[in-house]
Amino acid sequence: MKIGIVGLGLIGGSLGLDFTRLGHQVVGVARRQATCEAAIAQGAVQQASMDLQALSNADIIFICTPLHVIESTAIALVPHLSPQTVLTDVGSVKGTIVDAVTRHWPNFVGGHPMAGKTEVGIEVAEPHLFAHRAYVITPTAQTPLAAVDRLATLARDIKAVVHTCSPAIHDRAVAWISHLPVMISGSLIQACLQEPDPQVRKLAQQFASSGFRDTSRVGGGHPDLGLLMASHNRQEVLRSLTVYQQQIQQLMAWIEAENWEAIAAQLTENHHVRPAFTQSAPAPDTAEP
Amino acid sequence: MKIGIVGLGLIGGSLGLDFTRLGHQVVGVARRQATCEAAIAQGAVQQASMDLQALSNADIIFICTPLHVIESTAIALVPHLSPQTVLTDVGSVKGTIVDAVTRHWPNFVGGHPMAGKTEVGIEVAEPHLFAHRAYVITPTAQTPLAAVDRLATLARDIKAVVHTCSPAIHDRAVAWISHLPVMISGSLIQACLQEPDPQVRKLAQQFASSGFRDTSRVGGGHPDLGLLMASHNRQEVLRSLTVYQQQIQQLMAWIEAENWEAIAAQLTENHHVRPAFTQSAPAPDTAEP
Repeated sequence: MKIGIVGLGLIGGSLGLDFTRLGHQVVGVARRQATCEAAIAQGAVQQASMDLQALSNADIIFICTPLHVIESTAIALVPHLSPQTVLTDVGSVKGTIVDAVTRHWPNFVGGHPMAGKTEVGIEVAEPHLFAHRAYVITPTAQTPLAAVDRLATLARDIKAVVHTCSPAIHDRAVAWISHLPVMISGSLIQACLQEPDPQVRKLAQQFASSGFRDTSRVGGGHPDLGLLMASHNRQEVLRSLTVYQQQIQQLMAWIEAENWEAIAAQLTENHHVRPAFTQSAPAPDTAEP
Repeated sequence: MKIGIVGLGLIGGSLGLDFTRLGHQVVGVARRQATCEAAIAQGAVQQASMDLQALSNADIIFICTPLHVIESTAIALVPHLSPQTVLTDVGSVKGTIVDAVTRHWPNFVGGHPMAGKTEVGIEVAEPHLFAHRAYVITPTAQTPLAAVDRLATLARDIKAVVHTCSPAIHDRAVAWISHLPVMISGSLIQACLQEPDPQVRKLAQQFASSGFRDTSRVGGGHPDLGLLMASHNRQEVLRSLTVYQQQIQQLMAWIEAENWEAIAAQLTENHHVRPAFTQSAPAPDTAEP
């Protein structure tokens, strides 16, 4: 199969490494010549170019660019596509993307491989990044079944666990476990900065340990990522924050009223339900400082 | 020096391992015979007993019990103490503890070694647990200077970084970086449980990855710990939650108004200030599931 990859970063490069290993013809497109050369040198692609023309006649093309340029990349690709070319993306929001890109290319199917690490770029691409991780495919009623099948087969070939749901359901689910954590984690850092006493602020920084480090990690991540989540999944992020806000208010009311029984029951429930959310998560990323 | 340790868990056991290695006479007291035997077998103490009498004539005694039994342990210890015995504790809240225990034993100085790990118990005690970590000492105007000196010297001997501040300042600082994270992390888990659509709830669990895992870690920890933080540091926890609540409201207002510039500025600030809080934190605890 001829597979095209636009955007040779962590995700695009790692997909390329796996597809190359499986014997596919993999052609990459990046904005910079240095990235093209690095991707070839790493074995992530066999050919690489800064020209989308290189992807003509591809059987499937993965758009692995940042969220805000997926649509413009698709528009630029269209003149180079054969009618049977399947277009897909790896963006972390699906509703707006699927709507927009399908209008330009009906043979599009949205995808979201739920893998990543703290670092970005082709240098940190690695084989088997998607193995045993969720790969969400989000067809609509109009998506050609053959396009879904082609993507699902490739995802399973790289050992990912395929889930299929509508773009709307996807966006609601990731708001809870991916976008909401970024928002509430960032607000933790901001809250600490509001302490007016400089001695307390300084000691807080000196005393901060693994609890603060873990809880603040995604909130202190790359600013673009949080911004794209909030702007592209705005309604669902607001919906989850509204519910979260109510939980904080409830907890404050219980502490105010010294209702320790209610708090104990909630903390016990948290302790027992959390493993259902973390059983599929990979080992902690020890590269994180 | 004769050093007593009441409560032979992770902290008490680890202190014992370090003090024994430094050549001190270390005597432990635990509630269960099996714990006493395990502590001796591990080399955490040279003698261990279920009777506080074993600690008579100690130069310093570390109360390493859970927060809610520190005061009652001190009361039980008093009949066995020589006038010059320094009493200290390792509790994570200092205001209420220092007030209460000082009334029973004026030669008391509050302490808080900021070290820990996910697991608890004598089995996971380890040498050098406190090395390069903050050890907060919280004297009041009435605390004998000799008591502060004795504790500070021992803390520096085990390579901890000694910080001295009032109990009130300590409690305010740890509310920000230790207690608030537990509260907001727990509310994240609770918020996800409020999703009414079972399909979304199930997919959210299946999609949850390292971001959710890290942000929810301390909120899904042992229920007793969060409860003791909220109840023993109630005012400061409420104060930090009030400020946090305002941050969440501000963020929601910005998303609602599509004020992406304000959000980008805040996320960028988060990204840049977080390292000031995490430079002293140890490497991620890879034992955490």
